[in-house]
Amino acid sequence: MKFKVETYAIEAGRPIVIMNFEDAKELGVYVSDRIEISFNGHKTVALIDLTRSLIKEGSIGVSEDVMDLLNVEEGDKVDVRPTQRPESVEYIKKKIKGCVLQKNEIRTIMHDIVGNKLSDIELSAFVTAGYINGYNMDEIVALTNAMVETGQQIDFGDDIVDKHCIGGVAGNRTTLLIVPIIAAAGLTIPKTSSRAITSPSGTADTMEVLAKVEFRIDELKDIVNRIGACIIWGGALNLAPADDRIIRAEYPLSIDPEGQVLASVMAKKKSVGSDYVLIDIPVGKGAKITEMDTANNMAKKFIELGKRLGMYVECLITDGSAPIGAGIGPALEARDCLAALQNKGPIDLINKSLDLSGILLELSGKIRKNRGRETAEKILSTGKADKKMREIIEAQGGDPKIKPEDIELGKKTHTVKAENKGDVRCIDNKRISQVARSTGAPKDASAGVYLHVKVGDRVKVGSPLFTIYAKNSSKLEGAVRLTEQLQPIMIGGVILNTLK
Amino acid sequence: MKFKVETYAIEAGRPIVIMNFEDAKELGVYVSDRIEISFNGHKTVALIDLTRSLIKEGSIGVSEDVMDLLNVEEGDKVDVRPTQRPESVEYIKKKIKGCVLQKNEIRTIMHDIVGNKLSDIELSAFVTAGYINGYNMDEIVALTNAMVETGQQIDFGDDIVDKHCIGGVAGNRTTLLIVPIIAAAGLTIPKTSSRAITSPSGTADTMEVLAKVEFRIDELKDIVNRIGACIIWGGALNLAPADDRIIRAEYPLSIDPEGQVLASVMAKKKSVGSDYVLIDIPVGKGAKITEMDTANNMAKKFIELGKRLGMYVECLITDGSAPIGAGIGPALEARDCLAALQNKGPIDLINKSLDLSGILLELSGKIRKNRGRETAEKILSTGKADKKMREIIEAQGGDPKIKPEDIELGKKTHTVKAENKGDVRCIDNKRISQVARSTGAPKDASAGVYLHVKVGDRVKVGSPLFTIYAKNSSKLEGAVRLTEQLQPIMIGGVILNTLK
Repeated sequence: MKFKVETYAIEAGRPIVIMNFEDAKELGVYVSDRIEISFNGHKTVALIDLTRSLIKEGSIGVSEDVMDLLNVEEGDKVDVRPTQRPESVEYIKKKIKGCVLQKNEIRTIMHDIVGNKLSDIELSAFVTAGYINGYNMDEIVALTNAMVETGQQIDFGDDIVDKHCIGGVAGNRTTLLIVPIIAAAGLTIPKTSSRAITSPSGTADTMEVLAKVEFRIDELKDIVNRIGACIIWGGALNLAPADDRIIRAEYPLSIDPEGQVLASVMAKKKSVGSDYVLIDIPVGKGAKITEMDTANNMAKKFIELGKRLGMYVECLITDGSAPIGAGIGPALEARDCLAALQNKGPIDLINKSLDLSGILLELSGKIRKNRGRETAEKILSTGKADKKMREIIEAQGGDPKIKPEDIELGKKTHTVKAENKGDVRCIDNKRISQVARSTGAPKDASAGVYLHVKVGDRVKVGSPLFTIYAKNSSKLEGAVRLTEQLQPIMIGGVILNTLK
Repeated sequence: MKFKVETYAIEAGRPIVIMNFEDAKELGVYVSDRIEISFNGHKTVALIDLTRSLIKEGSIGVSEDVMDLLNVEEGDKVDVRPTQRPESVEYIKKKIKGCVLQKNEIRTIMHDIVGNKLSDIELSAFVTAGYINGYNMDEIVALTNAMVETGQQIDFGDDIVDKHCIGGVAGNRTTLLIVPIIAAAGLTIPKTSSRAITSPSGTADTMEVLAKVEFRIDELKDIVNRIGACIIWGGALNLAPADDRIIRAEYPLSIDPEGQVLASVMAKKKSVGSDYVLIDIPVGKGAKITEMDTANNMAKKFIELGKRLGMYVECLITDGSAPIGAGIGPALEARDCLAALQNKGPIDLINKSLDLSGILLELSGKIRKNRGRETAEKILSTGKADKKMREIIEAQGGDPKIKPEDIELGKKTHTVKAENKGDVRCIDNKRISQVARSTGAPKDASAGVYLHVKVGDRVKVGSPLFTIYAKNSSKLEGAVRLTEQLQPIMIGGVILNTLK
């Protein structure tokens, strides 16, 4: 059938056309079906939305990306015919039915995801079925490889070292210490990090306080070749883009299918050619993973997956029951890290970073067994790590002379104080992050929360617990109200809940 | 935060706003999150789409239904704040995790579905999880009741009789015989039917050849009070609308979770107050259900569900391995039915209709055991059913004097002939339906396919197998080409497949 093109101003992220119900009936298609649309030898496939009023019979609303693809303009006559669902819908149904997917089936799904050929309904069915029916190791290997091959791959040479944290712990900005320590030891560590989605800061957001974090691949290669390291935002590089689309579908359901998490992490590592990878799995109340068994199980699978992909992987299960470091929010975290590089920052952040660095040094074979931690300590205490970090900052266009106190913090502050005396029993990761997020972080880098206490500290009535930093009074007041509501720090008593 | 309203011309079927990525970051929201948008005391919740270009910072694109709800115009300043996901997302996650849902949780999900509060991602997760993890009978009862209470309910009085067919068999228009037979026996049968989505005709499409099928509830009550019956399109009545939304999400995946099918069918019956329900479950190659075990299992659950809902249900498992009747397509089926009512139509259609009518008469208690079939036969043979059908046609605004040959058929015809001699071994429901659909049916009511043979008939080379009817040559040629490709009728040999 022939249709007259009208512009349909939607940015759906995939090719969509909209047509009248009556025309759809004539064509024999229905909502979420696909049509092939062609004009002058160009053709493409698009998903259908239906309307009774927006588009009249004989016309078809076409999004701008589809218009570009076909090289059509408003008023042109295009040819439209029904087309089959992509093969991957059959494979998604196989997973729904509990079958194991073959390598080529998983590849086809990943290609269709990256090609924006699947609707939200299909993508969600894939994610949900994967969560419920799970993936075996063969499938996870295939998922990882398919995510890698459908995205950008960067070759930084041999013996590439990398680290990853499963997340969920407030503060915990170890990357900004580990990367310079490892690079100062002479190893190559091209670290790609993420920005926050719902947390008050991602590593990329924190690093952005000190330097730029978005680079082209050629710029990146130049930096890593010269300095042996970088700390940048991975999102701009198109590494494993299938994973980004899948995460978008998981987000509203807040489910993390384990196989998906494994493939997601390892695909990003493989895309930059990592050889030695340390994975930090924090466990504890308020962290992403709350059960030790879950963490142990995941660790075993990471190691097995690493073997299958040709990477040496070691996993550390760490205490994730409370924040690490004092600052929460980009500027406050960046201050912590700079101070720590000068041996002045929060002791828990320094200790965790040294532990992880030591293991990475041993894992890579650079330092012999049981000597990693002391080597890391020496690199930090002699100022070599600080020097390397300043090289990285300079290479990424920042000020290499920056001091912690140069970093601007929110002008409006409020210090939350203890209302009773006793020991700090709990600092809830999720709640303190919510308070920090409510200050305007990470969009406002200067905002956030600074912790004055650690779990186990003894406080008096009126002792400062944490200070809230915000740009203006309304943000500050919002964060203070949220603090009263959430009570992120628990002092004294052992009562966890009261049932009546 | 305050935003300036711009029109966002999308008919998504649910409240959607579109905002700039930077504003979303500031608000702390992400794709598929929800915001509360308020203006002058009006407020509503909408799902977020994000854009980098379509909407600039400080503005918000608002669909027309949302503009109406808020009573805002372009340029007005609205207040926007993040809001929680609806509760039902938590319950969907429970089902994903394999839990049994409570009555109130299922009610909340159905209310949110009808209120258009769930995104495609959430709805698809619900459907997929329901398919994989299944529902127990308590959940199915709750699903059915919640579907009923979130839609329109019509009271047609006591002792209401109804029938339903699970579908998948081409032709098979028994409703147009059963309804007048039952009504002629003095029972009340307010039959609501569906239109075709992907088949060449639904019962409502076929009935529309003879009379109108869309009525307001007061008109409908008047018809049923006077005549004791109707055959109308249920889609206009808003019966169990949650089911319609769920089916829209199942369609692209072509999955029918059993619990969902049970609830869907019975909710529509309960919405019109049915007391005695006969369910026809066709089984066979090319039908919706291919395994006898599946059919038996489903039948048991229908009966149990009926008991729990206070309805007497009987299920018939019927031979669905080939079409029933000769005509496939609205006009051809209507001709078959009118002829059958005068004892001249296809014998298989008459026999099946009499069997089902007989059982319904016994089920309702109107006719005593083992006398149903002969009563139905008498009603048909004495012309009482024909007379009642013409009353129904007249009450629904059609011509009560219509004769089968008055019904117009497509002017362009082509008769497909046997290429070898032998017995008709198979008439594939799906394939013959595809051919009929390709003629333009049901949009073009006069188009379709008329079968000249039945399974078991002996044919010679050149014997007519079926005639294709179409409006114009191009439709006809398309259907002929599809026939060559699909070979819907198999003659002679017993070879089902060749593997090399």
